[in-house]
Amino acid sequence: HELAPNVPFEDIGWLLLNGDLPTPEQSESLRARLAAEHALPDRVLEALRLFPADAAPNDVLRTGVSMLGAFDPDLNDHSHAANLEKSLRLVARVSTLVTSGWRIARGAAPVTPDGRMTHSARFLYCLTGRQPENWQAHAMDVVFALYAEHDFNASTFAARVTASTMADIYAAITSALGTLKGPLHGGANEQAMAMLRQIPDPDAGEVWIKERLARKEKVMGFGHRVYKSGDSRVPVMRALARDLGRRTGHEMWAEVCERLEEVMRREKGLIANVDLYAAPVLQMLGIPWQLNTPVFACSRVAGWCAHVIEQHDHNRLI
Amino acid sequence: HELAPNVPFEDIGWLLLNGDLPTPEQSESLRARLAAEHALPDRVLEALRLFPADAAPNDVLRTGVSMLGAFDPDLNDHSHAANLEKSLRLVARVSTLVTSGWRIARGAAPVTPDGRMTHSARFLYCLTGRQPENWQAHAMDVVFALYAEHDFNASTFAARVTASTMADIYAAITSALGTLKGPLHGGANEQAMAMLRQIPDPDAGEVWIKERLARKEKVMGFGHRVYKSGDSRVPVMRALARDLGRRTGHEMWAEVCERLEEVMRREKGLIANVDLYAAPVLQMLGIPWQLNTPVFACSRVAGWCAHVIEQHDHNRLI
Repeated sequence: HELAPNVPFEDIGWLLLNGDLPTPEQSESLRARLAAEHALPDRVLEALRLFPADAAPNDVLRTGVSMLGAFDPDLNDHSHAANLEKSLRLVARVSTLVTSGWRIARGAAPVTPDGRMTHSARFLYCLTGRQPENWQAHAMDVVFALYAEHDFNASTFAARVTASTMADIYAAITSALGTLKGPLHGGANEQAMAMLRQIPDPDAGEVWIKERLARKEKVMGFGHRVYKSGDSRVPVMRALARDLGRRTGHEMWAEVCERLEEVMRREKGLIANVDLYAAPVLQMLGIPWQLNTPVFACSRVAGWCAHVIEQHDHNRLI
Repeated sequence: HELAPNVPFEDIGWLLLNGDLPTPEQSESLRARLAAEHALPDRVLEALRLFPADAAPNDVLRTGVSMLGAFDPDLNDHSHAANLEKSLRLVARVSTLVTSGWRIARGAAPVTPDGRMTHSARFLYCLTGRQPENWQAHAMDVVFALYAEHDFNASTFAARVTASTMADIYAAITSALGTLKGPLHGGANEQAMAMLRQIPDPDAGEVWIKERLARKEKVMGFGHRVYKSGDSRVPVMRALARDLGRRTGHEMWAEVCERLEEVMRREKGLIANVDLYAAPVLQMLGIPWQLNTPVFACSRVAGWCAHVIEQHDHNRLI
């Protein structure tokens, strides 16, 4: 609650990787580093052009990360310092793989960003080709902050298992991306949006969800293995959904989500998780729903890298 | 001991995937299927050409498998039947990725195999461009049989973790390949060969290993977390090393390995594992040591796929 609305994603990445927030000078130089590492090797960009246009963006991203390893001169140096360097490259380039991969699949050329943008502004610019408004870049930043790290979920654990053989950090992040793909993990926020698109208003939401529950079907965006009394990320994401609703004329999304929350709490005792509100937030930021999971990865890669470094620094085979 | 020297790798793959050895008709049709699925999509072959010539073959293989998913029409069908089909494709194409990737990196054209070859003969043919002798194809088959499956090692576990989010089988095998890369897991047989290349004869081996032990350094090819009283695969692989030694005029390798076994048992109470003898066997089959881990993957992919199918059929998130 303290960090997500107030601290840029770059600084949160630094915190995860170094244990403290950066000084203003460190923050400045980190921002410059991420901008400098943003471009993909030409060969990797060429590989993105070889995918079928309907390939799952997560598969393109995973393949791109796997391939990037072969172009990193520090690939086989697993020292703490080298892993930190590679983590910066990964944080920068996972975003580029997502935005360039998406544009290429739609027949558009990748765009070259201005070096002075923040990471979140650059992500939106590289995706849409348009300079984002400040409120858009800030909202993206909050989303990235909220998703940056979340302990031992399946993808993080897969990264740790891979790193524990002393395989390199690209191998480990590739495993995390493969694991994130499954609908029981990273796929959840895509499915939450598929649900919301079927619901025009709160009353319809109440009907929809009761029918669903009567058929004993799972409702996406609810329940969480860690949070038993409420996902701590929901209040920030809910406030963001309301704010973006006002700014974009889509106030209905947050209202529908709030009604769904009410009904699920009353009928099933289940609480909303962050994916429920992330779905309309990403929609209102103009992000295609097919990118919901890759957007998650653009942020979580910071947390995954921190875990891999910890694993390599104090390794024991899992 | 029963299967490895006598049953073709194709049939062992069938056993792992189906629970019983195939009938002669099933075996015949399986062989035809693997031959038919051998070719890579052109786009994947093009992607192999984009790697730096000095890229680690394991990274090329992992990237290729990750990319193959995007070209499989059954990618998102996780039914038992569809997973079996995809497993056949993976067993066939992991070998092609290894052999074609290696040739391309050395500026040679991939070769197109004769449909009637066995899987092991095809592997050697596609790697070297020469029709293997029967004894070479048989030796390759024994190696593939010995490595085909080995319970819950790190790579298999990573495949299971990935599959447990209901991510697809290509995502899961990609995770396994990333995990296999580490020197604490799949890298072991490459390192065993690096050791043997420094040792000209058994007496030199005894000196070399004692110096190594005096410096408290790890000796590759010894010890195993599962086998406390002897790796059950060693007798078959040792016999193969002796046989290939006689056929190729390199009887010294097996003698060196046997002396190393003696010294390690006496000095440290440590037993040899299958990687010790696999290293010279692969060398005598003309396989470059850089491919030792990928060769392991060509075989183990059958076991990984069987685990992924089991995970998808009775899933619980790990």
